[in-house]
Amino acid sequence: MNTMNKTIKVGIVGGTGYTGVELLRILSRHPHAELHAVTSRQEAGLPVSTMFPSLRGQVALSFTDPEKSPLTGCDVVFFATPNAVAMSQAGALVANGTRVIDLSADFRIRDVAEWERWYKAKHASPELVAEAVYGLPEVNRERIRTARVLANPGCYPTAVQLGLLPLVESGAVDVEHLIADAKSGVSGAGRKAEVHILYAEASENFSAYGMAGHRHWPEIRQGLAVAAGRDVGLVFIPHLTPMIRGIFATLYARVNREIDFQKLFEDRYRDEPFVDVMPPGSQPDTRSVRAANLCRLAVHRPQEGSARSDTLVVLSVIDNLVKGAAGQAVQNMNIMFGLPETAGLEHVPVVP
Amino acid sequence: MNTMNKTIKVGIVGGTGYTGVELLRILSRHPHAELHAVTSRQEAGLPVSTMFPSLRGQVALSFTDPEKSPLTGCDVVFFATPNAVAMSQAGALVANGTRVIDLSADFRIRDVAEWERWYKAKHASPELVAEAVYGLPEVNRERIRTARVLANPGCYPTAVQLGLLPLVESGAVDVEHLIADAKSGVSGAGRKAEVHILYAEASENFSAYGMAGHRHWPEIRQGLAVAAGRDVGLVFIPHLTPMIRGIFATLYARVNREIDFQKLFEDRYRDEPFVDVMPPGSQPDTRSVRAANLCRLAVHRPQEGSARSDTLVVLSVIDNLVKGAAGQAVQNMNIMFGLPETAGLEHVPVVP
Amino acid sequence: MNTMNKTIKVGIVGGTGYTGVELLRILSRHPHAELHAVTSRQEAGLPVSTMFPSLRGQVALSFTDPEKSPLTGCDVVFFATPNAVAMSQAGALVANGTRVIDLSADFRIRDVAEWERWYKAKHASPELVAEAVYGLPEVNRERIRTARVLANPGCYPTAVQLGLLPLVESGAVDVEHLIADAKSGVSGAGRKAEVHILYAEASENFSAYGMAGHRHWPEIRQGLAVAAGRDVGLVFIPHLTPMIRGIFATLYARVNREIDFQKLFEDRYRDEPFVDVMPPGSQPDTRSVRAANLCRLAVHRPQEGSARSDTLVVLSVIDNLVKGAAGQAVQNMNIMFGLPETAGLEHVPVVP
Amino acid sequence: MNTMNKTIKVGIVGGTGYTGVELLRILSRHPHAELHAVTSRQEAGLPVSTMFPSLRGQVALSFTDPEKSPLTGCDVVFFATPNAVAMSQAGALVANGTRVIDLSADFRIRDVAEWERWYKAKHASPELVAEAVYGLPEVNRERIRTARVLANPGCYPTAVQLGLLPLVESGAVDVEHLIADAKSGVSGAGRKAEVHILYAEASENFSAYGMAGHRHWPEIRQGLAVAAGRDVGLVFIPHLTPMIRGIFATLYARVNREIDFQKLFEDRYRDEPFVDVMPPGSQPDTRSVRAANLCRLAVHRPQEGSARSDTLVVLSVIDNLVKGAAGQAVQNMNIMFGLPETAGLEHVPVVP
Repeated sequence: MNTMNKTIKVGIVGGTGYTGVELLRILSRHPHAELHAVTSRQEAGLPVSTMFPSLRGQVALSFTDPEKSPLTGCDVVFFATPNAVAMSQAGALVANGTRVIDLSADFRIRDVAEWERWYKAKHASPELVAEAVYGLPEVNRERIRTARVLANPGCYPTAVQLGLLPLVESGAVDVEHLIADAKSGVSGAGRKAEVHILYAEASENFSAYGMAGHRHWPEIRQGLAVAAGRDVGLVFIPHLTPMIRGIFATLYARVNREIDFQKLFEDRYRDEPFVDVMPPGSQPDTRSVRAANLCRLAVHRPQEGSARSDTLVVLSVIDNLVKGAAGQAVQNMNIMFGLPETAGLEHVPVVP
Repeated sequence: MNTMNKTIKVGIVGGTGYTGVELLRILSRHPHAELHAVTSRQEAGLPVSTMFPSLRGQVALSFTDPEKSPLTGCDVVFFATPNAVAMSQAGALVANGTRVIDLSADFRIRDVAEWERWYKAKHASPELVAEAVYGLPEVNRERIRTARVLANPGCYPTAVQLGLLPLVESGAVDVEHLIADAKSGVSGAGRKAEVHILYAEASENFSAYGMAGHRHWPEIRQGLAVAAGRDVGLVFIPHLTPMIRGIFATLYARVNREIDFQKLFEDRYRDEPFVDVMPPGSQPDTRSVRAANLCRLAVHRPQEGSARSDTLVVLSVIDNLVKGAAGQAVQNMNIMFGLPETAGLEHVPVVP
Repeated sequence: MNTMNKTIKVGIVGGTGYTGVELLRILSRHPHAELHAVTSRQEAGLPVSTMFPSLRGQVALSFTDPEKSPLTGCDVVFFATPNAVAMSQAGALVANGTRVIDLSADFRIRDVAEWERWYKAKHASPELVAEAVYGLPEVNRERIRTARVLANPGCYPTAVQLGLLPLVESGAVDVEHLIADAKSGVSGAGRKAEVHILYAEASENFSAYGMAGHRHWPEIRQGLAVAAGRDVGLVFIPHLTPMIRGIFATLYARVNREIDFQKLFEDRYRDEPFVDVMPPGSQPDTRSVRAANLCRLAVHRPQEGSARSDTLVVLSVIDNLVKGAAGQAVQNMNIMFGLPETAGLEHVPVVP
Repeated sequence: MNTMNKTIKVGIVGGTGYTGVELLRILSRHPHAELHAVTSRQEAGLPVSTMFPSLRGQVALSFTDPEKSPLTGCDVVFFATPNAVAMSQAGALVANGTRVIDLSADFRIRDVAEWERWYKAKHASPELVAEAVYGLPEVNRERIRTARVLANPGCYPTAVQLGLLPLVESGAVDVEHLIADAKSGVSGAGRKAEVHILYAEASENFSAYGMAGHRHWPEIRQGLAVAAGRDVGLVFIPHLTPMIRGIFATLYARVNREIDFQKLFEDRYRDEPFVDVMPPGSQPDTRSVRAANLCRLAVHRPQEGSARSDTLVVLSVIDNLVKGAAGQAVQNMNIMFGLPETAGLEHVPVVP
């Protein structure tokens, strides 16, 4: 295959957070990627491996000032930045022929007014929003191939959508009353100096948060609405659980029409390299996907009263930093550049 | 008050597990309790404080052989034993005038056949089941006062019932489709040598379990059915979360009739010393009740689609070993013996 | 006893950190303390129990602006502030007859020049340093009774000094080559928004820090030097271990002269209410003192080569927030005001 | 290179523990290894990926009964068994031309009488002990190439020896008074149903153990004695720290002769692919090697009294399951079969 000798020149903007270091972990061993530049205004000059000693011997680059950095020579630039950064810089890159994969939320919501409401900022490039492709390969694989701007999905939206899509597409459940009870490890909150995610606050503790409305809620609803061909109703309750990595989504849907739901899921994801529909009765745990680009799903039909319940329960697990962020971003890169979709993503989950 | 000089002679059967050591922590400082005997066949002769150095200087007793132990001289005996132990021993104690508080499940389910189905054993004293009082003070306070056999509720059943009771009693929600998404710390599984609760298995991991049916499900349904005056439908999904103590229950109910749900909860629990209805918008966490005999509740009405959802979300937190076990048992003892209900239970939660 | 009706009027400056909330946990149930004011410039007006829901129902006060706060009416004021705050405010309080217990480091180091070197600040009241009493009751009990300014020891210094004092006082070990390998839970770093103590940084990780010199090193050496009657040599290596509370100090000393070291420790601490010398062969763990005002010690003599080692190993555990901070501060208050030394400090350690 | 097409037929005995699943994680992606059989008497017939869902899609084998299993067809068999298993089975395999890599302790101690004293068993094949090669590649690389029986080092011995060897070899420190204060994650205790390593026991807790003598002590002393050319004195205190993976060893040695110790370490390990001597002033943490076959070392010279200390402190970190077990075993396999030493071992540490 000619892909075997292909090398993609990669830039990363904002490599100092958790999605950044995870991109570096994956890309530093990717057979077809060459790290060209990692930018950070604050850390310019610092060797990447000084900030992240785990990368000693793996990444020889230093952080460079984004002002001076030759990102335009890259084939692709990943934005692992806070929200509202990529939207200002993507345009120039795309104009120069560099493709953009944005791990932040700037291009995820198609309705710019709704984005502005949730992200409390004026959007800097609505025209790129219109063109951007939502990078959930299990839904948009064909459109991803040619995307110039790729909106990499959020972590919760990945876990919840992969778990609900077959149901919503099937028309066999009540799409007006979906419930997603989601639990996330603390790395999902990012590498930010904030009190509520300190070890002494988040350890040995369990909490709900974002009860007043979480930004991933409109993103999930947007994706499900496309699948349903109509608006959907979703109660989404995110929780913080004392672990570093992992999302566990417990999804509830009321059955409208009896079908073989196990088969529905197996058929839907049969050819997907990174979605694993587990056998009936399985109870997936987050460590079974730790540090790997995988979503594992299990479909259950619990008792409810004396008879079988009309509520279906789907369990969905991902590593929020891999299939929920950096891994999925590399999967999208592979698709965009005609590489084998699994290239550089063949990590076996780390257990225990 | 005459209670001030009252001293209750207390025995504990099975003091080597987590509910046992928690009982000892509480009772050793209880102003009206005197520890008389702690039995353990396996550990007979061993000072309690050798097994649990945290009790050095607090508990001078050694474990005694239950065969030889003068439990009949006690005013009350707590069973902190595995299931199917108390049912064989409670009868003789009660016949001798000793009251029994059972922290196991032997007397919780009124329908003996159902108990036998879930606990896979023949019940040894169905007649005591008939007489036993279910020890949720917020429901059964009056009957608890005179109970000879007290069935102390399970941890999940405490958190879930306290969170759902006001709704079910109000008739304002659909009791056929209740959902309890519950998360427990690992101590809930007990102090048993089992692989799945090893540190290296349960840490940095999140899982669901008991999907095929959990023993607390019939217990919760029984309590809610009494409150509803009819059978209820409940999907109950327990999860294991990497922390030692704490239960977090996220409870979902569909609203049938609009009422002021915040006020409903505040009115229901106004006089309860150990239930705290938090202000609107609160997001309780499990550490806010750590090591204390408290249930904190918050009532939420999230968005579901474009409009306000018809799904109500109640968050309920307890320490599974305190309000979910040993603390509630002592609360019941206080009620049974006419002591101030809060005696010995005034611990301030340990944060951080 | 006349102490039974004594009530001490207490003020807390800086109640928003971990030593602050721990002081509040202890003092809110103290039989002879009345919380009069808790100040915080930043949080003025906020109910204390809104910031710390664990204190709902226990602490009715709101934070008050230190400028306007009537601290001068207090019998005692605790400073649970960052370093270099108490030194500017203690003077005025003392002048008005209010006694000061400083949980920060401002008054711990008697050599002001050395303090200024380690804390990188000009000391604001050297004259109070001269007068201040170092609050390790096991050493200075008599002087504490009359102290106007009490310097509450650091967490590491408490664990290390209590473990080494009997040895150093005995003259039976080489005081020029002491080693303290100390491990602390993350709460020891305080409730500060800093990246290195985030959950996702500090969990599932173990590290040394402060290799270039830790501020507790001169404090420990000062205390040991007093005990030795000469300068001592100490290598002190602090480590961060993934737990919230607890210090574990492994202390190494070379034996000069053979004596009965177990007996030495037992004799030294026989009458101490908060120091527990465990039996020979004991292996204390930090949870055995969790949330309690206790130091547990074990003395070991391991093999080193083929023969018995000439190195003695002492294991010392405390809860850094209790005996290492707030609990010891309250113990000092009890001594200062002629209360029973254990008043309000009779918590049983929380296990598991 | 001709190695590029070489494939090694691999068997694993006892693949149900942590070193077993870690071997499977590594070997399933090894470019030159083919998993031929994984045996377990208890789990015979069970698909490996049913026990370890993390291996779904990676390992197609089922566990086989060791009695019936064609291990003799393998090029190499790894024993990931409890102690005292490999010693009975290695002989037959070796006689058939299969090479043995033993991850247990059966062949580590050359003095059979000493082995029997520490492991409380009669050794079944002393003659193989005599022949076995101790598999620390940084010491024995040449002898490993031709080994028929390879004794894979223990986790603590790997971390401690790599940290002390340059010092001991240099003759510049006092080898009679070495101290190794070592901290291990809980997976080091294995996947055994034992109470003391339950989550609720080991989490939020720190303890020392093995104070009466740990089996790794004679192993470490044996290795250091070879390097020193004489007997060495070592105090070794192992501790349990609440994390899954990782060993952190803090090593203390008294300097006899001043040399450039940083240079000593850099020179000693310059060509080692899996030992990283960090720059002066570095403070390695265990996560910097998580899930990777690496040992990182830092050399420090702390203050002790007013002057520079004569005590040297070396910090050594490994992942106990990788460089401390399965990874080092594969490194040894690579050496034994003339493969590139880093084949299959190029994992980047997983951070966070």
